[in-house]
This record gives sequence, structure tokens and C-alpha cells, in this order.
Amino acid sequence: MVAPIEAATTSETACNERPIVYTWDPNSNAGKPLFVLGEKRAAFEYRYIDLLRFEQHAPEFLAINPAGTVPVLLLGARTFTESTPMCEYIDAIFEGPRLVPASPLARYHMRWWCRQTDLVAESLSVLGWHNFMGPMVRKLPADEIERLIARIPTQERRISWRKAVFDGFSERQLADARARVADYARMLDHSLGGSQWLVADSFTLADILTFANFYALPLTMPDVVSAAGTPHLWGWLGRIYARPATLRTFAHARSLARRAFDVAAKFGVNVGDCCQ
Amino acid sequence: MVAPIEAATTSETACNERPIVYTWDPNSNAGKPLFVLGEKRAAFEYRYIDLLRFEQHAPEFLAINPAGTVPVLLLGARTFTESTPMCEYIDAIFEGPRLVPASPLARYHMRWWCRQTDLVAESLSVLGWHNFMGPMVRKLPADEIERLIARIPTQERRISWRKAVFDGFSERQLADARARVADYARMLDHSLGGSQWLVADSFTLADILTFANFYALPLTMPDVVSAAGTPHLWGWLGRIYARPATLRTFAHARSLARRAFDVAAKFGVNVGDCCQ
Repeated sequence: MVAPIEAATTSETACNERPIVYTWDPNSNAGKPLFVLGEKRAAFEYRYIDLLRFEQHAPEFLAINPAGTVPVLLLGARTFTESTPMCEYIDAIFEGPRLVPASPLARYHMRWWCRQTDLVAESLSVLGWHNFMGPMVRKLPADEIERLIARIPTQERRISWRKAVFDGFSERQLADARARVADYARMLDHSLGGSQWLVADSFTLADILTFANFYALPLTMPDVVSAAGTPHLWGWLGRIYARPATLRTFAHARSLARRAFDVAAKFGVNVGDCCQ
Repeated sequence: MVAPIEAATTSETACNERPIVYTWDPNSNAGKPLFVLGEKRAAFEYRYIDLLRFEQHAPEFLAINPAGTVPVLLLGARTFTESTPMCEYIDAIFEGPRLVPASPLARYHMRWWCRQTDLVAESLSVLGWHNFMGPMVRKLPADEIERLIARIPTQERRISWRKAVFDGFSERQLADARARVADYARMLDHSLGGSQWLVADSFTLADILTFANFYALPLTMPDVVSAAGTPHLWGWLGRIYARPATLRTFAHARSLARRAFDVAAKFGVNVGDCCQ
């Protein structure tokens, strides 16, 4: 019942250009291609876009990605801006371990997990704004905030930012976001009860992209995520922290994702000289 | 630079079970697998879940999909609940025309479009609620509304439904939703200026899933989407309406998606006896 899955055309894969990734810290969407390129041991150029200085909305960056979002992957003349499809593309064209499984059923499960993670990441970003971005932005002078919001490329995102900066989130919204993340952590724990990885016992994009969003839970939700409370999730986090690509990637962190080193210490991972 | 993309394993593809799709009308997410199975000319059993009677939250359906969402694909003992990954799976395991392109770059572009369409579909669903679902639900007795909301499986969706039913949407929210859909229609028109289909001149899931959401624009936004205003989008809609699978799929419609026949008439498509 299967037509053959054709291999990529030669012209596409004979790309000798060094990839360039424009992104922030290895955190959530911004981190996804970094972890994937790290697992592939692919050389790439990392151009840091400081979200804390709103560089993603600066004219220089909008010239690269008019949507004003990170991450962006440049490969020769090609630009990639959607983080999850970008990771499938990286997996397809770079050598190294396969991170997308071969079977259609396992691929479905991988994409199912990526999708659930992306949905719950919205709640995580509510908490991130409340705890981290919001307080920082509100310290700026009012006219500077207005100037920064005015250059956001879409009306829709200008509205979201304005709401997040000036109104903040209600206690109810914050409680809902926390509950949703906690539920997901318990669901991950349950699903990892029978296997090492999320999909069919092989390490896939589902693990990497979920980890990119939830690597800090032992720090941010210690009441939910702990060795005793969620042992399977705990073990999974420990296994990913122990992968060489993980701390190599976090070594690029300048801001929020520096916290990964505190989490790694909980797992007894030897951080090493390069990453401190 | 490419590792071979392996074909599916035999056990997975030797599936002789007749697929069962639980879904509503061929409309938005609910329609996606129907159009894809139609293009594949695959026989399947269609079990209609009436969203207008909230059957997706009934205990019988929650036994099949505890999340209470449509569409659901059953294939033997396997259940698929995420609509876009489900369509990639259908494409991989059923015979018929390939709807996912072979090259990684074209796949990225296909997934990029699917993602943009899913994002804009949120605005479309705001308009759908306002014009269609909301007025219908509000006609029910208050205790019946409460009973229906109480059985929605997640707290988060109970909150959204309650807001949609009782508060409705503000004029600002509705205007934003309309503007977002109109912008997307113009973007589709622009992108279709140079090619017949959204990705690399081949008909892919990007076309099908976008059409599943936006097939009614000539009716719902005639000021934006018309032969004169958006000629490339207009031509693309006409080409998809003319495909045999399209009206065969709409023939299943019992409710909202019946409007497709009015749109098809605008394109001069011969609806035929079977579909009236």
C-alpha cells in the first residue's frame, strides 16, 4: 500500500554553505535548531539576537525575517523561519544521527508530540512573560516602550505585546498556565514510564523540541517535577542533560538559558570547563 | 550530505483494515482527512459527529478520543487525532497520488504553509463562532448549555466555550479576525501569482489543508476574494473545486459545508447528481 519515499534531489543536498542561525538563547523555539544542529555535530554560525533588547524587531533583522521572529536558519540563499519544520529539514539534509524516525507511524507520533509541546509552550510563554520579560520591559521609560512596540511588524503582535506589557496577566490566567504546564509534565512522566524516549524507543525531534521548552522545570516547578514526584520525566531529563550536544548548546546562553547549568548540576552532569 | 530516507516497515503498511473517520462536515480541521482520503481514492467509513449537537463531547465519543476533538482516524487498533500529522500519515501509507513532495525543501515549504493556515484558522474560527455556532448555542435553554459545557473534557476548553457562548467577541476582536483572514487571502493571492499551487508547482497537502479552511471565502468575504480582486487565489480555488475529489467530499456535508455548492456554482463547476 506504499509508494516509495523518494530521496532528496541532488541539487538540494549538495549544499556546501555554512548554515547561519539567527536566534536568542537556546530556549523554547529559539533553541530548537541549535539543539538539532548540535546533535548532528554540524558546524554553523550563531548570530545572537537579543530578545531582551528587542533586536528581533530591529530593521536589520526585519530585512532577514520580515515577521520579526526567531529562530531563522539561513542556508545559502534559502531562509527558514518556522522552527519545527526547520528542524525536520535540518534532519533531512545534514549528516549525523537520524532524528526523524523512518516509519510513518513513528513519524506521526513524533509530530503529535511536537504539536502538543508547541501548544503547551504557549502557557510556558505566559509564565515567562510574567516572571521575566514583563518586569524587565516595564523598567524602560514609557516613550522607549512605545517606540519598541511601534516597530513590531504585525498589528496582532503589537496588540499582544501592549496587553502583556501594560495589563499583564490575571491571577486566573497565570494559575491556568501553571496548571496546564503541570498537567503536561505529569503526562510526559506517564508516557515515559514504558520507554526511554517519547517515540518508539528512539531519540527523535519529539524529545529535543520538548526538552528545548521544558528543560528548566526542575527549577521552575520543583513541587511538580522532581525525582520522587515524576521519576520517569526526571530520568528522561537526566538522559538529555547527559548528551554531549546538550551542554555544548547551552554554552551559547547569555541570559535565561544559563539556568540550564543549575539544572544540570541537579542531575550530576559534569559541566566541564568549556561551558562555565 | 543525505542519509537515505527509509521506506516504511512492512508490518505497518500491510494494513488491510478499512479506515474509519469520525468527523463533522468537511470544514476546517474536520475536513482535512476527508479531502486527503478523497484525493487518494481510498475507501473509508465516515462516522458523522454532529458538532451542532456537541456530539464530540458525548461519552461515546470521549471513549474514542478523550480530548473530545474531531477529526479522528481509526485504522485497525491505531487512533490518530492530530489533523495535519494525520494527513501526512495518510499520504505515506495509502496508494494514490503523492501529496507530500519528495524533496526536503519542498516539504519544508509545504509544512510552512500548513502552519500559517492553522494559525489563521484560529481567526476563521472566531468568525465561525460569532456567525454560526454562537447564535445557535444561545438558543438553547440555560441549563442545557451548562450541561453541555460541563462535559467538555478540559478546563481550558470549558473556559473558552463559556467565554464564546456568554461574552461573545468584541467588535475589536471580530475586526482583527476579519483583517487577519483578509491579509492571508491577499498573501495567498500574491504567492499564487507565479505558480498553480502553493508549493513548487505540485498539488500538495498545503493546497488541500488551506482549501479545507478557506474554500468559502468567495461567499464570506466577497469584498476581498473575487475574480477581479484576487485573481490568482480565485484561479486556485477554481482549480481545486474542479478536482473530482472535492465535490465528492463535500457531498458528505450536512450543515455549514453545504455552502461549498454555492461557491462551486460561481466557478461553473458541474455539481452533478450525486452531490445535490
